Amino acid sequence: MRTLKVDLAENSYPIYIGSGALKNGELISPYIKGNQVMIVTNELIESLYLSSLEETLVDYDVHKVILPDGEIYKTLSNCELIFEALLKVPCDRKVTMIALGGGVVGDICGFAAGCYQRGVPFIQIPTTLLAQVDSSVGGKTAVNSKLGKNMIGLFYQPKCVIADTSVLVTLPKRELSAGCAEIIKTALLADYPFFLWLEENIELLISANESAIAYAVEQCCRIKSHIVSKDEKEHGIRALLNLGHTFGHAIETGIGHGIWLHGEAVGAGMCMAADMSVRSGLLEENQQERIKQLIERAGLPVSGPPELNSEDFIKLMSVDKKVVDNTIRLVLLTDIGQALLVDEYSSDDLEATIEYACSIR
Amino acid sequence: MRTLKVDLAENSYPIYIGSGALKNGELISPYIKGNQVMIVTNELIESLYLSSLEETLVDYDVHKVILPDGEIYKTLSNCELIFEALLKVPCDRKVTMIALGGGVVGDICGFAAGCYQRGVPFIQIPTTLLAQVDSSVGGKTAVNSKLGKNMIGLFYQPKCVIADTSVLVTLPKRELSAGCAEIIKTALLADYPFFLWLEENIELLISANESAIAYAVEQCCRIKSHIVSKDEKEHGIRALLNLGHTFGHAIETGIGHGIWLHGEAVGAGMCMAADMSVRSGLLEENQQERIKQLIERAGLPVSGPPELNSEDFIKLMSVDKKVVDNTIRLVLLTDIGQALLVDEYSSDDLEATIEYACSIR
Repeated sequence: MRTLKVDLAENSYPIYIGSGALKNGELISPYIKGNQVMIVTNELIESLYLSSLEETLVDYDVHKVILPDGEIYKTLSNCELIFEALLKVPCDRKVTMIALGGGVVGDICGFAAGCYQRGVPFIQIPTTLLAQVDSSVGGKTAVNSKLGKNMIGLFYQPKCVIADTSVLVTLPKRELSAGCAEIIKTALLADYPFFLWLEENIELLISANESAIAYAVEQCCRIKSHIVSKDEKEHGIRALLNLGHTFGHAIETGIGHGIWLHGEAVGAGMCMAADMSVRSGLLEENQQERIKQLIERAGLPVSGPPELNSEDFIKLMSVDKKVVDNTIRLVLLTDIGQALLVDEYSSDDLEATIEYACSIR
Repeated sequence: MRTLKVDLAENSYPIYIGSGALKNGELISPYIKGNQVMIVTNELIESLYLSSLEETLVDYDVHKVILPDGEIYKTLSNCELIFEALLKVPCDRKVTMIALGGGVVGDICGFAAGCYQRGVPFIQIPTTLLAQVDSSVGGKTAVNSKLGKNMIGLFYQPKCVIADTSVLVTLPKRELSAGCAEIIKTALLADYPFFLWLEENIELLISANESAIAYAVEQCCRIKSHIVSKDEKEHGIRALLNLGHTFGHAIETGIGHGIWLHGEAVGAGMCMAADMSVRSGLLEENQQERIKQLIERAGLPVSGPPELNSEDFIKLMSVDKKVVDNTIRLVLLTDIGQALLVDEYSSDDLEATIEYACSIR
């Protein structure tokens, strides 16, 4: 078992990474405040891991909400289902909520925990690669509106994150690829040696090699917890973690949430960010090529959906949390391992990037 | 113009109290961060004061959401309407939201501001007596579920509160009475001299005498900001502000939100708290009688709705934020001006209080 720490004064918490962590009652118990537990999960995870977790929590008064599986269910109205389940028990303000699932479950459960009775404790038990390497760490919680992804949410930190790498072996290849998008993103923005490691080992990750996965999870959690500890509420450096995401969110909202997996949209989005970085004179073309090759080897799309034209795309990008005073802020690359926030760029370059990306297949 | 301060480190903010404050652009402008403003109000207030506020904000890019008037509209689905209005513009994270209205508008707008893009600034401009003396101060925001009042929400502080006492002269008498419930509550839990003043002046308040109202607003804001500054998130002393509210919320939820005004339910709830205080041997009967008389003179109900029996009532009370580990915590009185939190009491006494309160009319 490896332990990392997200350092946020009184909101600090540990991340535990290891095989079988889900079944380790002694690991989880210290983070459960009262006797009531509300597990939020989805239908797929229910059939795979819910009974294991319930066995681990046999001493508690356990309740659960089972959502359908998929990004389109990350809505305010499903949040209301969670509130109704809590109120029906009724759960008091000492209830501990547990998100057992991927990014969707973690985001909606965390948001519900932040709002129920103005905030109750919650624990993240991420069961997808994407959630273990990215979304379960850092306290970003949200639901989608049909007008924009993650536009409704809170910064609300969990009491701990438990990443059981053994659960990832059941993941379908598409989910493993989606998780690799956030792994590649993390290397791209902060860690060139880790990028080199990924160039050596990407096939091990998408074939669910547990030790390779455990290594990647640890690297990503290390880098992310370092960044979040410095800038919890994204006033500065944390925005770099959005590399590929402004493009990616536009894809997801534009073609409908859940059609592409989030990681797939981020894969294409990172290729677009790299392309824009080259057009802006920040990144060398051979670096862009290496980035694109790695994303492709991870089984991810390297171009946008052809049904979006550049006008739609820019309109979609302008509904994003990175927009301030009418300017879409972009995260661009100056090198592999080095990202920066850019407010000033040529809008012709941006259009060219989008048109190129959405027409190359 | 009088200025008070809620002292919460980096979340500190001023409360301005005065006649005509709504039309004072210089007062409001420093609290508007960017160029976009989203006003949330209701149909009634729209016809009375929206144009004044829009004139004050003529230099900004002003948008608005008009909700129907009433507690039953303080729901998550109306919150979604606010999010959609914000996203349609689209408003960025520098938008300033303004709650122009009573407690319902303040609560829902504050909650939406806390969630939109994980938090944007907001300003409270309370237009009812109840909102000026209580709900606009202290950062409690919430929406209702049909299973419980204010069970979904956030602690989210405004950037400032602007209480324009001149707007209260248009209030119907029923609203003035409802506001008096929170005024009496404030005196009861913390300030005997203020209670004496109320015994002298309650008729001036319910007949909309502006200088009496301005005095009462200032006293209430002073006491509340003092308590909130000591205990923002209700880990201790702030819970005393719930005097009459656990009973009151049960009435509101039990008969359906919006049938009784919140202040009316709190009026009856305070009579029940006083009755329970006497039964528990904490309060003298003659004090209870003085409390009841003042509440009655304020035009408020002094008994519960006859349609609720004690079993239903206790079930309703057990869905409340004051419930921890299956115990309903009560705020009781030891004297006029002196309240305390009580975990241990006779459940027979509680039943007797409810049965007496719901059968005396």
